[in-house]
Amino acid sequence: MNIIDIINKKRINQELTRDEIEFVINGYLDDSIKDYQMSSLLMAIVLNGMNDRETIDLTDIMLKSGDIIDLKKIDGIIVDKHSTGGVGDKVTLVLAPLLASLGIKIAKMSGRGLGHTGGTIDKLESIEGFNTTLDEEDFIKQVNDINIALVSQSDGLVPADKKIYALRDVTGTVESIPLIASSVMSKKLASGADIIVIDVTVGSGALIKNIDDARKLAKLMVKIGKAYRKPTICIITNMDEPLGYSIGNSLEVKEAIDTLKGNGPSDLLEVVITICSIIIGAVKKISNEEAKDILFKQLNNGEAYKKFEEFVEAQGGKLDSIKVSDKVFSIKSDKSGYINKIDAYKLGTIAKNIGAGRSTLDDKIDYEVGLVLNKKIGDYVEKDEELVKVYLNNKDISISEILECYKIDEELETIPKVILDIVN
Amino acid sequence: MNIIDIINKKRINQELTRDEIEFVINGYLDDSIKDYQMSSLLMAIVLNGMNDRETIDLTDIMLKSGDIIDLKKIDGIIVDKHSTGGVGDKVTLVLAPLLASLGIKIAKMSGRGLGHTGGTIDKLESIEGFNTTLDEEDFIKQVNDINIALVSQSDGLVPADKKIYALRDVTGTVESIPLIASSVMSKKLASGADIIVIDVTVGSGALIKNIDDARKLAKLMVKIGKAYRKPTICIITNMDEPLGYSIGNSLEVKEAIDTLKGNGPSDLLEVVITICSIIIGAVKKISNEEAKDILFKQLNNGEAYKKFEEFVEAQGGKLDSIKVSDKVFSIKSDKSGYINKIDAYKLGTIAKNIGAGRSTLDDKIDYEVGLVLNKKIGDYVEKDEELVKVYLNNKDISISEILECYKIDEELETIPKVILDIVN
Repeated sequence: MNIIDIINKKRINQELTRDEIEFVINGYLDDSIKDYQMSSLLMAIVLNGMNDRETIDLTDIMLKSGDIIDLKKIDGIIVDKHSTGGVGDKVTLVLAPLLASLGIKIAKMSGRGLGHTGGTIDKLESIEGFNTTLDEEDFIKQVNDINIALVSQSDGLVPADKKIYALRDVTGTVESIPLIASSVMSKKLASGADIIVIDVTVGSGALIKNIDDARKLAKLMVKIGKAYRKPTICIITNMDEPLGYSIGNSLEVKEAIDTLKGNGPSDLLEVVITICSIIIGAVKKISNEEAKDILFKQLNNGEAYKKFEEFVEAQGGKLDSIKVSDKVFSIKSDKSGYINKIDAYKLGTIAKNIGAGRSTLDDKIDYEVGLVLNKKIGDYVEKDEELVKVYLNNKDISISEILECYKIDEELETIPKVILDIVN
Repeated sequence: MNIIDIINKKRINQELTRDEIEFVINGYLDDSIKDYQMSSLLMAIVLNGMNDRETIDLTDIMLKSGDIIDLKKIDGIIVDKHSTGGVGDKVTLVLAPLLASLGIKIAKMSGRGLGHTGGTIDKLESIEGFNTTLDEEDFIKQVNDINIALVSQSDGLVPADKKIYALRDVTGTVESIPLIASSVMSKKLASGADIIVIDVTVGSGALIKNIDDARKLAKLMVKIGKAYRKPTICIITNMDEPLGYSIGNSLEVKEAIDTLKGNGPSDLLEVVITICSIIIGAVKKISNEEAKDILFKQLNNGEAYKKFEEFVEAQGGKLDSIKVSDKVFSIKSDKSGYINKIDAYKLGTIAKNIGAGRSTLDDKIDYEVGLVLNKKIGDYVEKDEELVKVYLNNKDISISEILECYKIDEELETIPKVILDIVN
């Protein structure tokens, strides 16, 4: 077999065999296939696609390229949740302790943020002392003891995806449904959970820009899950504006805590409750409405937050230490009207640029900085009323750049739905 | 400007500006753009194409990436000829001295062979002592003195094409009409001739497999030539079987000599006479038929061969030294019938494998080896009659592999035309 023949085959839009895909992945991992050959093949895949059989084979070969986590020693039903990435997305921080407080096991590996989107591990590390690396034994023990552990993805997990993802990031080959599906699903399948929940974000702040592509991606991931007999549920959520009000690590943890105490923003709450009610409904064999009642009760009676405290403490974090910068600036609206658009991608990029995120994987994060929105799409704003609070430390910000993220008109346009579809 | 944005733009099939193309070429030459980014962009170009404006800009930026040869010191009309590559293609060896014998100036830089196709420089180097590197002054003096000089392409000519071509060769991104057109035309335009003639080969032994693509390529190159006010003539020739009878360096020089003496194979003669009559017709303002008469006269009265002798001597070559291996084997047909197909690509690859060509640019060529066909498409062969003579030295050959290159049937199918079209 020869990599050039394989590239040429995909170039003329022919189906690759499992052996050919295996040759590519193994050759790329052992450096016999070069970066410049892999990127050329990846672009051919982005433009000519892969069918379901090729995508499932690619997923399987990637997931077998490294460690596969064995969670058999955990009793009960283990749930893993993933998001394809968004701005202000603190769903995991709320959902995980909420489910754990109801007896569901959360044994989850999370990633770090890159570009305009944040990562759960970075957010948790904004809590002083929080340890995101547990060895396997401690990880399993903690899940058995308190139902929840959340750690950084191990280096040994799906090394093929790690290497390919880093290349895609710098070669314009990120936006491909089969490549995204196999990347996400290989990691989720290698992580060993019983039920996989994926939040497919769609909109200006997400990787996927339109609902049709989001549905295709969701259906493909559900199909891959089925091939492994792992129930996979995809919830398609709107990322045309940031989720909730806060963007930035400490700020998002604080908003997650408010939500766990029953005082969350309605869009964040809707995503959390929708995902959790599907899981609770399925596990406890109760109706969706009954599940929602139970979930709201857990938020309002303090049980969900208690579980969060227990979880943070178990991993060494000091909740009373959470700090946000005291250099706070208020950005005021330059006109009155209804907010019809908020550019989540641009706000995410601004937050990254002031230190809340990374441009390269070596960048250090400033946990204390970020943005807190005062208004969301559909709200009315008066001229000179506050639109955003900015928490700064060492970096500067452009006021006009922030104002450009808002589309404010006299007439109210349609308010986007939060949950766009559920695929399972 | 940012390479990832440019890749993404081409990925979604948007037109690149001249500035963006310049950013890419300069960045690739100074290594700020990496091989893996260039190959991803090249695959996006292969699959999404480039329009004429982009292709002309790419050609212009590439041709200005290095030295541009100034041939003003040569009196008279200077012709350059190029072939997109074939098997047994010794057209230049005949055409160049033939035109020179009629007063046309041939100041030509040629390439070496790679893969299944040969290169004129390698063929000339099979003549002992032949010097393919002249400095600019000697090169110009020789053309002024005897109308012809033929040297190896200088390293300083179109370095951008050199670097990009090497990458395309190993990343499955060779087969693209705009990329082939800009690669060929940037080199031809940088070489300084007045008239550019390009033999666009099409068929199993060529880069371009079908006549429609060949016409597109030809039209595009003529258009690029027009943008520089350089008359460019493309002749589309069939490469479904090798040209002439011989494949391999010394063997091809011998066949070229026979042709220059008036005893050439009809297909080779047809290509040479067609190209030369267009040039002679245009330069001398005479009809095509008159031009052909003059050309046949030059072959039959010894003038063309005399010019060849003069040219080889001027560059130090000893014509009486041409040697072919004396280890000659005869491959006989395993059945009787009409030859309906000869796989030029496979025969070219076999010739390469026995030493007549290179797999990598570092391989050494064995000038004495090669194949001489005894039959061409349309010929009848008896069982046990000779199909091919094989000239071997150190490497072995598989008889069945050679027989597999022939399709022999009871019925005669259509005999392919040699000249498929002329575009100018």
